[in-house]
Amino acid sequence: MTIIEVRSLFEKINANRYFEFFVISVIILSALLVGAKTYSLDPNVQTVLGFFDNIITAIFVIEIAIKMMAEKRTLDFFKNGWNVFDFIIVTVSLIPIDQTDAATLGRLLRIFRLLRMISIIPELKILMGSLVKSLKPLGYVALLMFIIFYIYASVGSIYFEKINPNLWGDIAISMLTLFRIMTFEDWTDVMYETMEVYPLSWIYHISFIFFTAFTFLNMMIGIIVEVMDQERQKVEIEEGEGEAAEVHEIKEQMNELDRKLTLLLEKEQKNT
Amino acid sequence: MTIIEVRSLFEKINANRYFEFFVISVIILSALLVGAKTYSLDPNVQTVLGFFDNIITAIFVIEIAIKMMAEKRTLDFFKNGWNVFDFIIVTVSLIPIDQTDAATLGRLLRIFRLLRMISIIPELKILMGSLVKSLKPLGYVALLMFIIFYIYASVGSIYFEKINPNLWGDIAISMLTLFRIMTFEDWTDVMYETMEVYPLSWIYHISFIFFTAFTFLNMMIGIIVEVMDQERQKVEIEEGEGEAAEVHEIKEQMNELDRKLTLLLEKEQKNT
Amino acid sequence: MTIIEVRSLFEKINANRYFEFFVISVIILSALLVGAKTYSLDPNVQTVLGFFDNIITAIFVIEIAIKMMAEKRTLDFFKNGWNVFDFIIVTVSLIPIDQTDAATLGRLLRIFRLLRMISIIPELKILMGSLVKSLKPLGYVALLMFIIFYIYASVGSIYFEKINPNLWGDIAISMLTLFRIMTFEDWTDVMYETMEVYPLSWIYHISFIFFTAFTFLNMMIGIIVEVMDQERQKVEIEEGEGEAAEVHEIKEQMNELDRKLTLLLEKEQKNT
Amino acid sequence: MTIIEVRSLFEKINANRYFEFFVISVIILSALLVGAKTYSLDPNVQTVLGFFDNIITAIFVIEIAIKMMAEKRTLDFFKNGWNVFDFIIVTVSLIPIDQTDAATLGRLLRIFRLLRMISIIPELKILMGSLVKSLKPLGYVALLMFIIFYIYASVGSIYFEKINPNLWGDIAISMLTLFRIMTFEDWTDVMYETMEVYPLSWIYHISFIFFTAFTFLNMMIGIIVEVMDQERQKVEIEEGEGEAAEVHEIKEQMNELDRKLTLLLEKEQKNT
Repeated sequence: MTIIEVRSLFEKINANRYFEFFVISVIILSALLVGAKTYSLDPNVQTVLGFFDNIITAIFVIEIAIKMMAEKRTLDFFKNGWNVFDFIIVTVSLIPIDQTDAATLGRLLRIFRLLRMISIIPELKILMGSLVKSLKPLGYVALLMFIIFYIYASVGSIYFEKINPNLWGDIAISMLTLFRIMTFEDWTDVMYETMEVYPLSWIYHISFIFFTAFTFLNMMIGIIVEVMDQERQKVEIEEGEGEAAEVHEIKEQMNELDRKLTLLLEKEQKNT
Repeated sequence: MTIIEVRSLFEKINANRYFEFFVISVIILSALLVGAKTYSLDPNVQTVLGFFDNIITAIFVIEIAIKMMAEKRTLDFFKNGWNVFDFIIVTVSLIPIDQTDAATLGRLLRIFRLLRMISIIPELKILMGSLVKSLKPLGYVALLMFIIFYIYASVGSIYFEKINPNLWGDIAISMLTLFRIMTFEDWTDVMYETMEVYPLSWIYHISFIFFTAFTFLNMMIGIIVEVMDQERQKVEIEEGEGEAAEVHEIKEQMNELDRKLTLLLEKEQKNT
Repeated sequence: MTIIEVRSLFEKINANRYFEFFVISVIILSALLVGAKTYSLDPNVQTVLGFFDNIITAIFVIEIAIKMMAEKRTLDFFKNGWNVFDFIIVTVSLIPIDQTDAATLGRLLRIFRLLRMISIIPELKILMGSLVKSLKPLGYVALLMFIIFYIYASVGSIYFEKINPNLWGDIAISMLTLFRIMTFEDWTDVMYETMEVYPLSWIYHISFIFFTAFTFLNMMIGIIVEVMDQERQKVEIEEGEGEAAEVHEIKEQMNELDRKLTLLLEKEQKNT
Repeated sequence: MTIIEVRSLFEKINANRYFEFFVISVIILSALLVGAKTYSLDPNVQTVLGFFDNIITAIFVIEIAIKMMAEKRTLDFFKNGWNVFDFIIVTVSLIPIDQTDAATLGRLLRIFRLLRMISIIPELKILMGSLVKSLKPLGYVALLMFIIFYIYASVGSIYFEKINPNLWGDIAISMLTLFRIMTFEDWTDVMYETMEVYPLSWIYHISFIFFTAFTFLNMMIGIIVEVMDQERQKVEIEEGEGEAAEVHEIKEQMNELDRKLTLLLEKEQKNT
């Protein structure tokens, strides 16, 4: 068998629906294994699970190898970001971790195999793409939000530090506390505590809630309007083409009429 | 009276507005009975309520029987999903449950009679239909959400199990805890507890909140855009027809002009 | 001065902008008085406030009298729902309440004067109208929500009554508890309590949250789509008229061309 | 160097991208200094930070001076609201505060320098503008919301004052408590407390939640519809122009046809 024949075989395997279905099944099995290990299990069962784990790792290595060889040039495989993502996840889970200390890290790495689900199901890939795209217009709103957080956290850690250092100890902790206030989680407890020392400090908390809630609302509305606008433009371009075609047709008919009339006029002129 | 006469009689009863109104009243009465039984009542009153209960069961059986006989073929009755739904609910409440042990189960079954409300009021049926339809495009977002939950729950039960097994004992409990965090319910208590052991674990909680909130937001916006798009398309098809008719009329008039001009040209040619 | 002259005078007063402004000021003053009385005050100040209160009551009586007399027929005044609303609020605050027992009730009635703000500011009247209008399409969703609540409350009070009668004692208390769960307010405390007896009761709570959240979301989206649809239709009717006019113009021009061509053809036919 | 040459030099500096970048860097550094001071630091480090602080103040003064001199008339600088905003922030941080008492105030003023970020990044300026603009249509909804709050707060402080003066002591505290209820923060604790004295007081809390949630929802929907309407109008004006141009072209062609036909008719008439 020549190399080209082998490659075309791998290409066929890779494009096969059953192969894709098989890989998805293995990923799900891999996820179930990770989930099963969070329960306290019989040592025998654990040995069996560990055995399955090695098989899954082997399958993933073979699968990646097939995908790489299915490319005309092996390096083309790395041109696709999702392939790089798959490759890293599989390679990392190959690193042998035997020390008990790093055992939890090893288990952690196996979890991320579940992320391969996203790269293997096309609909999830598209969904991820549109999620990331909808993040873009949020850049400046996020910056504004951060400025609001930073200013309020500075003020908070200057004035409230002595009241409760666990909540307002430094600017980082204060920002965490402010995030908590933004989610309305026991925010009144935080407020009542500061109001005992500074009775007017409710202004600080209420104004912060207003600013962030309002900025958040605007961000959300911004996304809705943005998404609907894109949708509308897409539709309008299609419709516009349809309309343009019709207008063109009408104009053509008019030119035809014009041509005939001109001919008539010319003949009339010759006659007279 | 022949069978056909009987059936047509039942058909009339079934189509009668007062009959429908009567059945709705009985359903409401049935619901009130279930509600009344949750209060501690005088034994005499309870006996009366039990008596009413049997009457309602009898009425429901008669009603279903009428509906079945109103069909040309009795089995056609089961072709409608809502009828099957009604039939099961009524039949199940017929099962005699006398043992004290299963008494609560018997009461439970009577509650589901209230669901018949949905099958008998057309507007609620339509509403349910549109609710279920709006669920469809959510499939892949739900899958993505589940992947996020599963990964975070695995990580949580690996690292935080020893901190609080009630919250992070295994992957199922961890997912429940994560759902709690997603609803912002005392999520800081959960976070502060883990931060005492892993000071950087706020990254785990905050990133989870960001991912789920963002995915949820996108899902919501997706539904809004989807629903409005359908609405718009419906309107556009109507409008498009109106416009198309007008364009057609203009073209017809042009063809008429063209025909006359061609005639003129021909005549002119003959003349010369 | 004849009666007609008096009426026209009252009409002028009523239509006067300064009169409206004066009444608004009195309403605000009345609201401030109610607010001031919630603070513990010096008896002298309280006497002064009580004096002001009587003056405000007098002004309101005079104002209503002017409005009634400004109408051609006094009874026409009651044809406007907002006027009836004003009349009731002012009359009720006239009832003398001297007993200490009913004193709080008297204070309560004075608060509702603030509602006159809505009837006197046209923009608030419009806003209230649109709020009430947006409630209409919610009828069946509210019914569906109620059915969900009723069924879950029945189930809850049957199974969880013995666990915590304060939360699940009867169907009314259970519905209050479910509303609490819907607002995510300490819902995990309620859930953990029931899970100790029924470990699977998380299904009850989570499914309830899903059902209500989903119904609520759909309701919200329904309103958004509804409102935007109305807005769009309004705009389209305007635009449609503009377009229709243009199409009509083009058709007219074509008819003119057709008329001339027909004339030509006829002449040509006569010639030959 | 003449004054004009100096000014044109300053103009160049001001328009320079690197100068803008440098100023942004200094603002960020200034913010980091404020943040760093919230941590307990070594006295030596604090001295260094104080030194940096003075340098930053100096840079800001020079920057404002350059901006002022870059204007043709120095006073034109104050015609731009954002410049006034910058000027105040920089001047205020120049005030020497040495007393320990006012030291925290001095630190506070330095925080507001971060707000200069908004005035120096054009995108943030635009964002702020659109945020403020979206506030306008909310005026009357806010007034309605305030009326609801005021009425409920009055009722609350009349009836519940004796139950818990910390929550219902006077109208201001009651409004804070109502805001807490609106954010669903431990609102059931507040409700259960009042229900022990007035068992029906759940009507008060639930109705308040319904009124505010409904008003809030309407406000949000109002903004969404408003923003999308503006967006649509903008697009339609553009499209309208395109369409109008095409309709104009068709009419022109028709006029041309009409002119030629009229010519023909005239000639024909001469012939006969």
